[in-house]
Amino acid sequence: MTLAEAAEATGGRVLGDTSVTFERISPVHDAGPRDLAMLVDRRYATDLPGCGGRALLVSEALCGIEDGPADRVVVADPHAALADLLPLLHPDPPRDRGVHSSAVVDPSVVVPGRASVGPHAVVCSGVTLGEGVRIGANCFVGEGVAIGAETVLYPNCTLYAGSVLGDRVVVHAGSSIGVDGFGYVTSGGEHRKVPQVGGCVVEDDVEIGANCAIDRGSIGRTVIGAGSKLDNLVHIGHNVTIGPRSMLVAQVGVAGSTRTGAGVGMGGQAGISGHLRIGARAQIAAQAGVIGDVGPGQVVSGYPARDHRTYLRAMASLMKLPELVRRMGRLERRLDGRDGA
Amino acid sequence: MTLAEAAEATGGRVLGDTSVTFERISPVHDAGPRDLAMLVDRRYATDLPGCGGRALLVSEALCGIEDGPADRVVVADPHAALADLLPLLHPDPPRDRGVHSSAVVDPSVVVPGRASVGPHAVVCSGVTLGEGVRIGANCFVGEGVAIGAETVLYPNCTLYAGSVLGDRVVVHAGSSIGVDGFGYVTSGGEHRKVPQVGGCVVEDDVEIGANCAIDRGSIGRTVIGAGSKLDNLVHIGHNVTIGPRSMLVAQVGVAGSTRTGAGVGMGGQAGISGHLRIGARAQIAAQAGVIGDVGPGQVVSGYPARDHRTYLRAMASLMKLPELVRRMGRLERRLDGRDGA
Amino acid sequence: MTLAEAAEATGGRVLGDTSVTFERISPVHDAGPRDLAMLVDRRYATDLPGCGGRALLVSEALCGIEDGPADRVVVADPHAALADLLPLLHPDPPRDRGVHSSAVVDPSVVVPGRASVGPHAVVCSGVTLGEGVRIGANCFVGEGVAIGAETVLYPNCTLYAGSVLGDRVVVHAGSSIGVDGFGYVTSGGEHRKVPQVGGCVVEDDVEIGANCAIDRGSIGRTVIGAGSKLDNLVHIGHNVTIGPRSMLVAQVGVAGSTRTGAGVGMGGQAGISGHLRIGARAQIAAQAGVIGDVGPGQVVSGYPARDHRTYLRAMASLMKLPELVRRMGRLERRLDGRDGA
Repeated sequence: MTLAEAAEATGGRVLGDTSVTFERISPVHDAGPRDLAMLVDRRYATDLPGCGGRALLVSEALCGIEDGPADRVVVADPHAALADLLPLLHPDPPRDRGVHSSAVVDPSVVVPGRASVGPHAVVCSGVTLGEGVRIGANCFVGEGVAIGAETVLYPNCTLYAGSVLGDRVVVHAGSSIGVDGFGYVTSGGEHRKVPQVGGCVVEDDVEIGANCAIDRGSIGRTVIGAGSKLDNLVHIGHNVTIGPRSMLVAQVGVAGSTRTGAGVGMGGQAGISGHLRIGARAQIAAQAGVIGDVGPGQVVSGYPARDHRTYLRAMASLMKLPELVRRMGRLERRLDGRDGA
Repeated sequence: MTLAEAAEATGGRVLGDTSVTFERISPVHDAGPRDLAMLVDRRYATDLPGCGGRALLVSEALCGIEDGPADRVVVADPHAALADLLPLLHPDPPRDRGVHSSAVVDPSVVVPGRASVGPHAVVCSGVTLGEGVRIGANCFVGEGVAIGAETVLYPNCTLYAGSVLGDRVVVHAGSSIGVDGFGYVTSGGEHRKVPQVGGCVVEDDVEIGANCAIDRGSIGRTVIGAGSKLDNLVHIGHNVTIGPRSMLVAQVGVAGSTRTGAGVGMGGQAGISGHLRIGARAQIAAQAGVIGDVGPGQVVSGYPARDHRTYLRAMASLMKLPELVRRMGRLERRLDGRDGA
Repeated sequence: MTLAEAAEATGGRVLGDTSVTFERISPVHDAGPRDLAMLVDRRYATDLPGCGGRALLVSEALCGIEDGPADRVVVADPHAALADLLPLLHPDPPRDRGVHSSAVVDPSVVVPGRASVGPHAVVCSGVTLGEGVRIGANCFVGEGVAIGAETVLYPNCTLYAGSVLGDRVVVHAGSSIGVDGFGYVTSGGEHRKVPQVGGCVVEDDVEIGANCAIDRGSIGRTVIGAGSKLDNLVHIGHNVTIGPRSMLVAQVGVAGSTRTGAGVGMGGQAGISGHLRIGARAQIAAQAGVIGDVGPGQVVSGYPARDHRTYLRAMASLMKLPELVRRMGRLERRLDGRDGA
């Protein structure tokens, strides 16, 4: 691809030679002579002097930066440009079609023409598969599961009986969906299981990372709203509703029956207690522990989670607390001294 | 099922028409005309005006609540009633028996008459299987593993060689049991592995969530005590003993050689350091980080974990700390002013 | 094995009868009459009076301790001695060789003579396998993956296409390697996926625990440095570099593009934000939440993470804060009283 073509595909412009070509995009510190080096952020500018890339992908704000390749593609947002260019540089490989001979597919299941079922996958009775569905090797798709068009399961996933996945859903390797929730009735110290008979619905355009665990409802349903993205190792408890277009970073946990609004963000390792309501566009900082409702647009952090700025300010003053204790002692002694005088 | 039958099964009573029937139980906000709507808690009472359920399952405390269906089953504890009613409404489906033709079972293994081994499961030599055991698709059961009667493995689980599971154990999808512990000897910055040759014992009536990882002992054993319940994505280190009838919520981690008493509770994402003792019935709050022993019945939270109430009180006063710093400055200036006067 | 032989293998010495024999090594509280009981630490000395072991493995510092077996092997470091003795007591079982008849291996793949591919494993086209590689049951090895000599995959692992594993790597059950990173461009509240086309490199002698998730680079590479050890349920984001010989305890999460130096330690459940640099030999305490760069050799804890001692001191004084607020009020009243006088 030439720099001219890259500029056209991204709505950007070229500084230098428009006919320069590249084969792939690499970070500045890792770029070779056939690469377009991408400068993500000013803090990586220190890597520029040693950059071996043929040309530089850079934002308007940083386009005049001194070091690094002189031939440049200048764009409004390098990340958006990356999303534009990568599909052109790395077109999807041709897909297998059909059912691998080692897969075990119940005879009642209709596999559409462009769909595929990988080696050693198991597809149980009553399953419905949309056009273009791809089921990875060693996946288990339980009885009565419904999977929408163009949805992809990477290898070693388990869909419990009755789970419902929308169109264009992506589930990464090792994830378990529609798992029994953690529901027991305790009496006399013994825990009796409450049967988990509810549903688990993953709406259109959701992407779920590797090794996640998403519970079915106990009664009622667990719902992951359309367009939401879950990173790796995320836990979603029973009867939870995650609103549409939310972002849950790795190792987040959401406990049972909590409902979140649209466009909520949760940083890595954040935890939300059960039976809460989290308003639309709320931001839960990494590692926050939320034990009360959060309003729309609120930004919270810490345990128990509070307003993010208030929390950070309090933690900063906490570091001065030992000094404050000393100052308090001095004040008391001064006052004692005067009173004694 | 009629309301009269439901009342009888739960030891409750009917308000209104005892002959009203329902087919399933649903949360108030999700109930349709064939459903018994279940009101879990007063905070969901706001969903009652729009409730489409045919009747209401409700506690004695809330039985007179205004909105929602007038025909009601009133019980002491709705959750316990749920555990009574669901098995009647959703009887277990008939189970497959026998060994699927695609499973690989060592010829030395005896599969009891009511047991089942799913598609593509692998059962190695020396494995013993109790009556009624069900091994899910794509599970791996290593050499010499012993599995008690009526135990269920959901798909894609791995039991390392020598693991021992009791009767009526349930292991959800993707969990790994009997994994090598994290044991190394470091010298000169290099980490040399200490062979992990100990056992891993999961006692009767334990339930283990999806995508958990439970280590074997290095020497000695890791033990999950009878009747304990582990949620999803829980980590248990080597040589740990979890006492009987404990509850470990999702994403809990317990480091090596820690021993906990009976009936301990751990909230989501709590972590316990290694080589500690946690007393019976202790409660470790969600996200707590425990780095010292905890006495029987103690309730702790925070990092480092302390008495729960003390911690919450301290965190509340922390939020006033910036204001306290200002008050301190004012006091010092007043005293300086007087001393100067 | 006799105590004399054990002393010779560990560079230790015998107290008592050198001809005493044992068959295995056990913790003090669990040792039987054929066992060498191992006393790890003074805090387990309380188990000594009831110890049923035939002899005791103990450090120089504790060798004179009163209770427990009188015949003793005394060593500088019992853990190092354990690493010396266990391979002698528990030699590796003979390994299967060759490809199991149920495995699906692309015809283009060359399987070396001492390598093995387990039941129901899937090995795609373009994969290269080193001598002695062992691929566990139900593993999926994607297109073009390269695996070095003597590397072991336990069952149910997934290696995404193009992943590169060095020599003597160990990957425990259920782990996913080379997963798509969490990369989206958001506009108008919609999240558009940035294709994840980078590499994932796991260098020589790395061990990865069960149910981990390691992302590939978006562009560029994710690298786990040689000799590093990851415990269970660890998450590594895209474009991360983990320096060589590091130790990441269970449930750690490292967000995208962070680079860590050699010999870094991270305690259980610690989290590191994206785009940071962590210096060589830094120690991140359990549950720490790191949101800024950490210098070489620094020890940090808490959220946001700070110097470990400063943080612990601050948390200790925090517990006295409610009392401090009361003292402040008393001081203000005294001063008010005097000013009013």
